[in-house]
Amino acid sequence: MAKPLNIGMIGYGFMGRAHTNAYKRVSDFFSLEYRPVLKAACARDKEKVTAFAENWGYESVETDWRKLLERSDIDAVDICVPNNLHKEMAIAAAEAGKMILCEKPLAMNVAEGEEMCAAVEKAGVPNIVWYNYRRVPAVTLAKRLIDEGKLGRIFHYRANFLQDWTISADVPQGGAALWRLDVDAAGSGVTGDLLAHCIDTAIWLNGGIQDVNAMTETFVKERVHALTGKVQKVGIDDACAFLCHFQNGSLGLFESTRYARGHKALYTLEINGENASIAWDLHDLHRLSYFDHSDEGRLRGWRSIHVTDHGGDHPYMDKWWVPGLQIGYEHSFVHQVADFLEGVAKGTPVGPTFRDALETQKVCDAVLQSAHSRQWVDVN
Amino acid sequence: MAKPLNIGMIGYGFMGRAHTNAYKRVSDFFSLEYRPVLKAACARDKEKVTAFAENWGYESVETDWRKLLERSDIDAVDICVPNNLHKEMAIAAAEAGKMILCEKPLAMNVAEGEEMCAAVEKAGVPNIVWYNYRRVPAVTLAKRLIDEGKLGRIFHYRANFLQDWTISADVPQGGAALWRLDVDAAGSGVTGDLLAHCIDTAIWLNGGIQDVNAMTETFVKERVHALTGKVQKVGIDDACAFLCHFQNGSLGLFESTRYARGHKALYTLEINGENASIAWDLHDLHRLSYFDHSDEGRLRGWRSIHVTDHGGDHPYMDKWWVPGLQIGYEHSFVHQVADFLEGVAKGTPVGPTFRDALETQKVCDAVLQSAHSRQWVDVN
Amino acid sequence: MAKPLNIGMIGYGFMGRAHTNAYKRVSDFFSLEYRPVLKAACARDKEKVTAFAENWGYESVETDWRKLLERSDIDAVDICVPNNLHKEMAIAAAEAGKMILCEKPLAMNVAEGEEMCAAVEKAGVPNIVWYNYRRVPAVTLAKRLIDEGKLGRIFHYRANFLQDWTISADVPQGGAALWRLDVDAAGSGVTGDLLAHCIDTAIWLNGGIQDVNAMTETFVKERVHALTGKVQKVGIDDACAFLCHFQNGSLGLFESTRYARGHKALYTLEINGENASIAWDLHDLHRLSYFDHSDEGRLRGWRSIHVTDHGGDHPYMDKWWVPGLQIGYEHSFVHQVADFLEGVAKGTPVGPTFRDALETQKVCDAVLQSAHSRQWVDVN
Amino acid sequence: MAKPLNIGMIGYGFMGRAHTNAYKRVSDFFSLEYRPVLKAACARDKEKVTAFAENWGYESVETDWRKLLERSDIDAVDICVPNNLHKEMAIAAAEAGKMILCEKPLAMNVAEGEEMCAAVEKAGVPNIVWYNYRRVPAVTLAKRLIDEGKLGRIFHYRANFLQDWTISADVPQGGAALWRLDVDAAGSGVTGDLLAHCIDTAIWLNGGIQDVNAMTETFVKERVHALTGKVQKVGIDDACAFLCHFQNGSLGLFESTRYARGHKALYTLEINGENASIAWDLHDLHRLSYFDHSDEGRLRGWRSIHVTDHGGDHPYMDKWWVPGLQIGYEHSFVHQVADFLEGVAKGTPVGPTFRDALETQKVCDAVLQSAHSRQWVDVN
Repeated sequence: MAKPLNIGMIGYGFMGRAHTNAYKRVSDFFSLEYRPVLKAACARDKEKVTAFAENWGYESVETDWRKLLERSDIDAVDICVPNNLHKEMAIAAAEAGKMILCEKPLAMNVAEGEEMCAAVEKAGVPNIVWYNYRRVPAVTLAKRLIDEGKLGRIFHYRANFLQDWTISADVPQGGAALWRLDVDAAGSGVTGDLLAHCIDTAIWLNGGIQDVNAMTETFVKERVHALTGKVQKVGIDDACAFLCHFQNGSLGLFESTRYARGHKALYTLEINGENASIAWDLHDLHRLSYFDHSDEGRLRGWRSIHVTDHGGDHPYMDKWWVPGLQIGYEHSFVHQVADFLEGVAKGTPVGPTFRDALETQKVCDAVLQSAHSRQWVDVN
Repeated sequence: MAKPLNIGMIGYGFMGRAHTNAYKRVSDFFSLEYRPVLKAACARDKEKVTAFAENWGYESVETDWRKLLERSDIDAVDICVPNNLHKEMAIAAAEAGKMILCEKPLAMNVAEGEEMCAAVEKAGVPNIVWYNYRRVPAVTLAKRLIDEGKLGRIFHYRANFLQDWTISADVPQGGAALWRLDVDAAGSGVTGDLLAHCIDTAIWLNGGIQDVNAMTETFVKERVHALTGKVQKVGIDDACAFLCHFQNGSLGLFESTRYARGHKALYTLEINGENASIAWDLHDLHRLSYFDHSDEGRLRGWRSIHVTDHGGDHPYMDKWWVPGLQIGYEHSFVHQVADFLEGVAKGTPVGPTFRDALETQKVCDAVLQSAHSRQWVDVN
Repeated sequence: MAKPLNIGMIGYGFMGRAHTNAYKRVSDFFSLEYRPVLKAACARDKEKVTAFAENWGYESVETDWRKLLERSDIDAVDICVPNNLHKEMAIAAAEAGKMILCEKPLAMNVAEGEEMCAAVEKAGVPNIVWYNYRRVPAVTLAKRLIDEGKLGRIFHYRANFLQDWTISADVPQGGAALWRLDVDAAGSGVTGDLLAHCIDTAIWLNGGIQDVNAMTETFVKERVHALTGKVQKVGIDDACAFLCHFQNGSLGLFESTRYARGHKALYTLEINGENASIAWDLHDLHRLSYFDHSDEGRLRGWRSIHVTDHGGDHPYMDKWWVPGLQIGYEHSFVHQVADFLEGVAKGTPVGPTFRDALETQKVCDAVLQSAHSRQWVDVN
Repeated sequence: MAKPLNIGMIGYGFMGRAHTNAYKRVSDFFSLEYRPVLKAACARDKEKVTAFAENWGYESVETDWRKLLERSDIDAVDICVPNNLHKEMAIAAAEAGKMILCEKPLAMNVAEGEEMCAAVEKAGVPNIVWYNYRRVPAVTLAKRLIDEGKLGRIFHYRANFLQDWTISADVPQGGAALWRLDVDAAGSGVTGDLLAHCIDTAIWLNGGIQDVNAMTETFVKERVHALTGKVQKVGIDDACAFLCHFQNGSLGLFESTRYARGHKALYTLEINGENASIAWDLHDLHRLSYFDHSDEGRLRGWRSIHVTDHGGDHPYMDKWWVPGLQIGYEHSFVHQVADFLEGVAKGTPVGPTFRDALETQKVCDAVLQSAHSRQWVDVN
């Protein structure tokens, strides 16, 4: 019988739901030493957090996150709040000896991130950041292929994360729902929200990034602020693109925007190697595109691999349904919980740890700095 | 607070998992008057059913389905066993006053199906059959468009369900895992297993089928039988295709096989109307293809609608994640449970009822009869 | 220096243009012993044929096809007129010792086709029918793969040819432009026009068809006749679908219609073998879809082969541009002319000969007979 | 009867064939006041140019291009030679009063380009550069949609041109076939060869580019030189990517490489506007992807427009075949010749003129300068 691992969830938004769903489902599909227990949900708004807790089955609620950390029946804390609150909570949680599952990006900037890394490492608590796309089976398969050397020397890496939800100038900034548009809460716009995902995957698949050269743009300069009711200057980046060099000598090209009409969450990546290439697209996340130059010449073509078709060999897929039946977005979170729990059982760190996420933070900071200075910036 | 509705599950296979997952998840995402409670799991093999119950959280186990039906704490029975057992269980469950959620196809043949319909209607118990594809959001959207008249007069309906898992002659027939290849347990091969899905959706979208003209084939004539260990004649149809006329005057073309190399579960459908056409494909179930002749001429093209992009208007999608993030196969079952529970609360039947499923059974029987007689057969 | 081969073209419609273009271009791209010379164009309407001849560069015009056949400076006759005129012209041309390139379908029926075959074989003249899709490079590649045994035992063949241009009841029947809708000129509707293409390719790729079971439909029962100006009964089939058995034991499924909204010329084919499958689609004719079961399990997927990428090995493609640059519909005619001329030089027949096309005619006749009798009909 | 316009072609390579084919075919499909006559082909190698002339039907040959320019029977000169020869020939041709059709890029650099512009403008001769992609019907349709304001304010433009033919270090540089790898003949690598196409289309569709920030890379540092037989440093850029701002405030992202395994000639472009977005891909050049935000919410999706389906309204397509039948790469050249000849008849310039191509040259120069200086560079 699996041992309970008690979760204290701080936050109740979109990500709060996605994480909670993962905790609730993981034990149905994965055989693990630990099973998550929804012990407490925490947020300042008592009414809302109570409704959230009842909906999902949390055993209790807290309205003060420091109280949550004081509770001895909480093993792990999930930090699912705006970016500007990560640091304080994470450091306190580490000091309280709690395991931490922190929403991405790790922090508002590298300085905060370093403090957070120091805290968890000093405390020796298991820690992970919710860069969930690593655990989409198609992306995990890409990682395996690269690590096996199937692609050979890498020449190019490119990634996009395109959305279109802020095109209207009538969308306000700030407040509970729209804190991602408020620079004080989010730290940055698409860079920390979307590009951070692309960067985490890129470093995981293709190694470290050496230097970057970026441009950002804010298309809508002023928006009503939901908290003040006044028209205020928009401080975030609406769009960001950058060139970079990876440490392995390959070239990188990244772009993100919330002004690409027709794309809701088009995270695409492509990696071109000497012997093979790989492409993936979040809009059809259960497929991996693969080109293998070692195929017979006249029969070479991009393969559309339905990453459900061969359960035994496709990452995570032996846990789900039968061949051909697709899984979705939410399953990436289930996989992350499963891997995290396995790491806890074994006593080994599971990435992306805070330290891994700090690497992404460094790239984000360099990108924003480069956009500001209009110069190439070394990552470090 | 939602009222409990106690489930007694008979069976623990692939479908037992899919249904159970739906019962467990529905209340997290849908606000309903009833919430399913996993009261009991039932199967002859005590060890296996106990493991299943523990994995999924069923409160108790039974090894005799008649005992399950006698329990007063069971509100609804889920019949998730080979086809040859449906009739007896369903009739007994109806007589015991239980609601019934029965795996498809309804029965071994029309005669059995009629008895089952009579039983549930006499008992007045809510009843539904697990033709889950009606509740893939893209398919539900297709239904709405057709009902609104967007397509105009319908000319053509075509559907395929293609798999490739029995090509090897080394696959045995029969036994727990492979009862679908044993004619005594399954009644038929692809006709009842796969075409039944296509037919249910077709009748739902395009109305009744008038007559059919079919051919079937058994490519591998003999296989080892898992129960006897002997090489025995294969009694099922490996492939089946048929022509038909719908009552609305449109032409239908259906095909199913387990010998289509490269396709794992390729259920596709297309419907061509005077003004618009629709196509769908289970391998990318979150998309609907749509062609609208009323678009400006030079800009006409098939639209690939990502049925997650516009939560408020896409069926069921306001319950899940944010735009662009796909759901998968299992969600169709969650939707069916949600609709069923809503029907229970309102006291209204929710399709596909046993009576609806009987229409599909009639077509299946006519198809098999036509393949045998090499004649057109009226559906009746 | 290539020797001239003088062409006499009868007809000047869409196909007259497509064939003439092929004659004019072939020598630019293929090194051949013969080069076609546009010697004479022939049609009853002097003004129109003169304009056609001037546009394309025919050296002379004739208004009586019998005169054309009498000319000693004509080596080959291209019969590009409505189906009901093929027989008389072809027999006379054979008797005049002319090579014949005849538009498809070969004839109005098998009886006519047999007379035509007898005539060309008695005369010993080179003869070919314009089933041009055999020479789309992707289709030719498919043929090679099948002949090499890459697919193994074949289980399924399916083909569609879908159009939507006659949905409006306001389209008249008959006359120069619309003779395909006039049963007296065309013999049948989609069966001879579209399915004949599918059948020719199918027999070429997968061998002979044994028996068929068909249904046809005429959705718009009456149309104004362009010649009489009166509303008259429509005699052609608007749609036709049939089941069949191939001689190699595989199952066939064919469908054609002019009422599939959204499809202009969607000729698709798919063939499923034990080891591999192939699919092709005229709307993207430069691509071949290929699935190879011998690929490593986790990396299996349908390959989209851009049949321009590997000039040396892709049929015909070494004659055109550089890798990645697509050719189109018209090139299939150029390839047919090239192959025909090579056959003339070598003195060997090049398919599809009249005799080959007679096999397709037999299937078409059986299909129409089956639709009429509502019975399976043996092809013979 | 169309008046002759005598062509003198300098060069006989891949582009020489593509242009010649366009001259030969245009009058068959377009009704024009002028018809091109293949008067003379010119190249230094007498044997090769004679073979070329015989193959294509040029009436005469020259081995000295200055002789060609002296001939009074030559109306227009097609400059189809390596980039380092464009300037001298073009200026001499202008001085000789010849119309000029010059292969792209215009010149080795802006300075050369300006001299060339001055020469043709002083001479008053019609001039055009072979940026042929403007006249792929799908791209021309995109232009019309943008000009009509269908997209509204533009936010993003991105384009890629990806190839994979120089990955092997065994490919030599220089010589007749591989002059594109020799910096002395080509001036640059992918920037002038591939990105120049992307830039020309971008400026045409989206207006001028203001500033750029680029990186280039040479992956294989040394190759055997075909002319010297020695291993020499490679001077060209193997890959180039750049960020930019358009004058209309939109952001641009461009990338090109010959090291993208799996792509032969993948020229893609996408443009995101406030109201609509457009995407296109040379590998399926007959299709345009279009997303229209004004579509009903639940039915919004990217449309795949087969730009052959509606002859009357799709650019150029009324000249070719019937709906659904695709044309290919070579047709873009035919369209350019047709438009050029129409301009000659009307006495109006037809773009891209030398002056238009100079704008592209300016961007290319700025890109190379930026890659060198690692700074943002203003285009000017």
